[in-house]
Amino acid sequence: MRSNKNSVIFIMGVSGVGKSTIGNLLSEQLGIPHFDGDDYHPQKNIRKMSDGVPLNDEDRYDWLLALNELSKSQLNNNSCIISCSALKESYRKLLVEDLEGKVKWVFLVGSFDQILKQIQHREEHFMPAKLLKSQFEILEEPAQALKINISNSPEEIIDAITTEFKKSEFGLLGLGVMGKSLCRNMADKGFTISMYNRHAKDLEEDVAVNFKKKYNELNTALPFDELKSFVNSLQRPRKIMLMVNAGKAIDDVIKNLVPHLSEGDVLIDGGNSHYMDTQARMKYLRSKSIYFMGVGISGGENGALNGPSIMPGGPEPAYEIVKDYLEVIAAKDVNNSPCCTYIGKEGSGHFVKMVHNGIEYVEMQLLAEVYDIFRNMGYDPDKIADIFESWKTTTNSYLLSISIEILRKKEDNDWLIHNIMDKAGNKGTGNWTTIASSEFGVPSTMIAAALFARYISSFKEERVAMSNNYVSNKNTVLKIDANEVLKAYHFARIINHHQGFKLIGEVSNLNNWGLDLNEIARIWTNGCIIKSTLMEELVDILKGDDTILSNKKITNQVKDLKPSLTNVVSQCVLNEISAPCLSDAIHFFNGYSTANSTANLIQAQRDYFGAHTYQRIDDSTGEFYHTNWNKD
Amino acid sequence: MRSNKNSVIFIMGVSGVGKSTIGNLLSEQLGIPHFDGDDYHPQKNIRKMSDGVPLNDEDRYDWLLALNELSKSQLNNNSCIISCSALKESYRKLLVEDLEGKVKWVFLVGSFDQILKQIQHREEHFMPAKLLKSQFEILEEPAQALKINISNSPEEIIDAITTEFKKSEFGLLGLGVMGKSLCRNMADKGFTISMYNRHAKDLEEDVAVNFKKKYNELNTALPFDELKSFVNSLQRPRKIMLMVNAGKAIDDVIKNLVPHLSEGDVLIDGGNSHYMDTQARMKYLRSKSIYFMGVGISGGENGALNGPSIMPGGPEPAYEIVKDYLEVIAAKDVNNSPCCTYIGKEGSGHFVKMVHNGIEYVEMQLLAEVYDIFRNMGYDPDKIADIFESWKTTTNSYLLSISIEILRKKEDNDWLIHNIMDKAGNKGTGNWTTIASSEFGVPSTMIAAALFARYISSFKEERVAMSNNYVSNKNTVLKIDANEVLKAYHFARIINHHQGFKLIGEVSNLNNWGLDLNEIARIWTNGCIIKSTLMEELVDILKGDDTILSNKKITNQVKDLKPSLTNVVSQCVLNEISAPCLSDAIHFFNGYSTANSTANLIQAQRDYFGAHTYQRIDDSTGEFYHTNWNKD
Repeated sequence: MRSNKNSVIFIMGVSGVGKSTIGNLLSEQLGIPHFDGDDYHPQKNIRKMSDGVPLNDEDRYDWLLALNELSKSQLNNNSCIISCSALKESYRKLLVEDLEGKVKWVFLVGSFDQILKQIQHREEHFMPAKLLKSQFEILEEPAQALKINISNSPEEIIDAITTEFKKSEFGLLGLGVMGKSLCRNMADKGFTISMYNRHAKDLEEDVAVNFKKKYNELNTALPFDELKSFVNSLQRPRKIMLMVNAGKAIDDVIKNLVPHLSEGDVLIDGGNSHYMDTQARMKYLRSKSIYFMGVGISGGENGALNGPSIMPGGPEPAYEIVKDYLEVIAAKDVNNSPCCTYIGKEGSGHFVKMVHNGIEYVEMQLLAEVYDIFRNMGYDPDKIADIFESWKTTTNSYLLSISIEILRKKEDNDWLIHNIMDKAGNKGTGNWTTIASSEFGVPSTMIAAALFARYISSFKEERVAMSNNYVSNKNTVLKIDANEVLKAYHFARIINHHQGFKLIGEVSNLNNWGLDLNEIARIWTNGCIIKSTLMEELVDILKGDDTILSNKKITNQVKDLKPSLTNVVSQCVLNEISAPCLSDAIHFFNGYSTANSTANLIQAQRDYFGAHTYQRIDDSTGEFYHTNWNKD
Repeated sequence: MRSNKNSVIFIMGVSGVGKSTIGNLLSEQLGIPHFDGDDYHPQKNIRKMSDGVPLNDEDRYDWLLALNELSKSQLNNNSCIISCSALKESYRKLLVEDLEGKVKWVFLVGSFDQILKQIQHREEHFMPAKLLKSQFEILEEPAQALKINISNSPEEIIDAITTEFKKSEFGLLGLGVMGKSLCRNMADKGFTISMYNRHAKDLEEDVAVNFKKKYNELNTALPFDELKSFVNSLQRPRKIMLMVNAGKAIDDVIKNLVPHLSEGDVLIDGGNSHYMDTQARMKYLRSKSIYFMGVGISGGENGALNGPSIMPGGPEPAYEIVKDYLEVIAAKDVNNSPCCTYIGKEGSGHFVKMVHNGIEYVEMQLLAEVYDIFRNMGYDPDKIADIFESWKTTTNSYLLSISIEILRKKEDNDWLIHNIMDKAGNKGTGNWTTIASSEFGVPSTMIAAALFARYISSFKEERVAMSNNYVSNKNTVLKIDANEVLKAYHFARIINHHQGFKLIGEVSNLNNWGLDLNEIARIWTNGCIIKSTLMEELVDILKGDDTILSNKKITNQVKDLKPSLTNVVSQCVLNEISAPCLSDAIHFFNGYSTANSTANLIQAQRDYFGAHTYQRIDDSTGEFYHTNWNKD
């Protein structure tokens, strides 16, 4: 067996299917012990079965726990084989508790008549044939098992099992920065993997082979540049993660893969695809009986290597198949739970990743605005880094901490930051989030502001021309101190997170996705770019409240912080500092906490020129009215 | 002939095709005079032709002008017929100058041999047969003519002409508010029209018939609720304007219409369709040899009736066919030119209308914010209306003037505005503009802010709950006067128009549409919702400058206005007034006029966590760099 770690092979199936026989033969072949699950039944269960009384779930509970304990203690020394009927998904869940990524299933199957015949030959067996029927009735077929029919000879069955387990558990396709890091992460966790990268003459040659040579943890990994062999090197149902560029490349890869795949295989798109594209691909592959999942992965190169935050969306049965792998490689939260959870159906995984990136855009822009304020106060990058450093105790985050390192970075006698071109790139997700906000009627004002700030930066030549045309008499006197800026920054971050989670919540409702906001906050507490102490606080907050701003604790925080944001934003305006995100935070908050907005005037205008009608505050029936405005 | 107005029937075709004969016969039949164009040739032309020398364009110029003069003077009394070869599009343009909407074309056609035979029978004709060839060579077939083959007998030809001219010139489909107003406008201008509205039992019955009965100007209009008869009632090439709801309804109508249409017919979508849908429909109908145009129409019910602003986009030859109708019914600018001009190819007409509506969203929101400021200063609606009234001399607009009427409107003892529900609706175009800005990388910050302000208003219940949670200690002391608010408002309007036209300009470049920004401003000076004195100023400004903010005059204005906006926005912030559009105007301006933005920090962050690389300001080659940030 090809493995980097000890594992348990469960041989399952209805009573009489031949689990013990196969278990013993396999034990000889692999040189690892076999335990017959039936030997671990409490006496009362054995008695019941001998009396022809079917076991109930309560009877089974202690038995399954005993087998789970047996597995765990064996794994400390060696791999092992356990034969056990394990007919229901709930039983199997108990069996593998705390064994994530260390279990393989062999499912022996046969027809009722076939098995009945076998049982009638065995005098010693304590299970009367008449109970076989009840076993068939409760059997829930496992999705993730190697399924073998007992019409094969025992030798053939052993051969099939050993051949299959020589194959890789997981395949990764596309060895770019992220793909390579995920390969190393997965191999490091003891999974056997196959790695594929296309062959492109003179550009990409022997990528997988050379990559394997570079890292010790890849010694059991299999490298490929030929698609068919790659697919055939994988255990079934196959689990293949695509790490290629979003867009046409994904469709091309799918097209080339499909002829080699089998029913029930799982394809995972681990890139930043648009969630609507993911839904379309899911639908297409469902028509071919292949599972497709859209899985958001955040954390950059470093996160992918040491534990990213993972947002898997798609069919739930598919998640059951890949769960162990994703949860094992994911970052761990403060309670050591994986920063990976089943997000929901359809494209919800990629949707949530998209909003993650939208929140990230704002977090970055807020730091840029704060940097600008201090720059205008005459502080050099080291001084600004010192201030940021002092903020860590109040509001730490990954982006704050990397900004400190960035600001301190020097080359020759200047700070590197002074020589970086001020035109920001964007890779689509901030843009998509703004579009989704517009489409779904949810006001993500700060994400739009952060996106547009990047766009404005890209018009560098126009900006330079404008700055020459409009020489200002600006005489910067910012009447604020660093602590006020910190409070303003923290307030704005709360609004940013409110807006992001609100967008997810609203779209989840509209699409009937049933997304769990507090679980999403939890898997964002580690591994990803927007991990922060605020995110950790939000986990609890989102357990109790639908939106962040409706939480009592946040209410009090915001009341305390608001005067600072008010002062900072007005000082920015008076001193000609562009701070669109800080500013939108306060205008959003003021608009959102106003019982009577000014949309009454807008409704009147719409009714005036377009006869669009309006509702009245003194008519709770919601009826629509039209007025002939220009007649008395 | 069915008509509400005098018109000129030009009978055209190569020499010898029989124009005079047909002209005389038609004259007898219709009882209107016929003028033989050849009688109006200057002597020098006749001499040339007799000598067998082909006429050049210079020769023809005086002749065509004479015929144009003849037409105009005749039209004062009666309709008339003029026979004239009119072989080139440029000749026809000269012939019909200032006759928009009053001309009908009959194009007689025959083969070379057929015509040659006819000529050889006519001894008196001054045109030698050998010149016929040159006539065929220069002939450019007209798109908008009734084309009749001379193999028909003269009687049959006359019959075809009179039958055709009994048909309607223009068809309108969909008699909603806008459709009805356009029908009345068109009929009032003397066009013969057919009007169609579907039959829907108990809901829409005899809509067209009943509508016709209601208005005198519709006495020659033909009403239909059956599609085939409607189409057959139209002169060819048919011109049909669809005034149905954007979306699926348009596709359904097209599907039902297509089987009844002929090659070269023109379908016009006069609703607010998304420009990408319009492009797809254009492509589909091109495959059926039918022209499709996406035409933006602004002005609401009143504009449609008395002259809207019209933004036609699509194939240019199609515009030539419908031009006279659209330009006659359009509003007129200050120079009496129609507020209708060919916008450009593909979906550019609907795109421009979409941005028009985006600008409109902002103009409305700015008035709402200004209203809010005055409301917070304790002014009642009448007082605010008085202030707005006083602004008209500085910055008048349609939206300002209707806001005054709205604010003054009373019911019982209160102002009506106080009882209108403050939840703003939106019909998609503001949303689409925000999406287009995001997609094309153009920062339309104010349109997004206006859209999101409407969205925020829609969460009324959450707003009320929030206002209870966050009872503020707000003590409004706005340190501003009305004149400063006016200046701030005017500054923000300039930025709004800058952003709107910038979006059109950028998208025009990206799509190779070659749109003419100053013509677009011109057709927006009257008839539409965003007409204003500022728009009138922009016509000239956009003649000379690519963007509004790069204009010298605007530069000076903005310098003068900026301190007021700065003060007003900071006062709003300090007094908890949500003014996202005013605020975005100043933040956009400050960002857009900053030579060194803070995108350097964002680029560094992106390179840190995602290895996205950055460019350097000290390397003009644009090379990309990557830094290992967390290593010394």
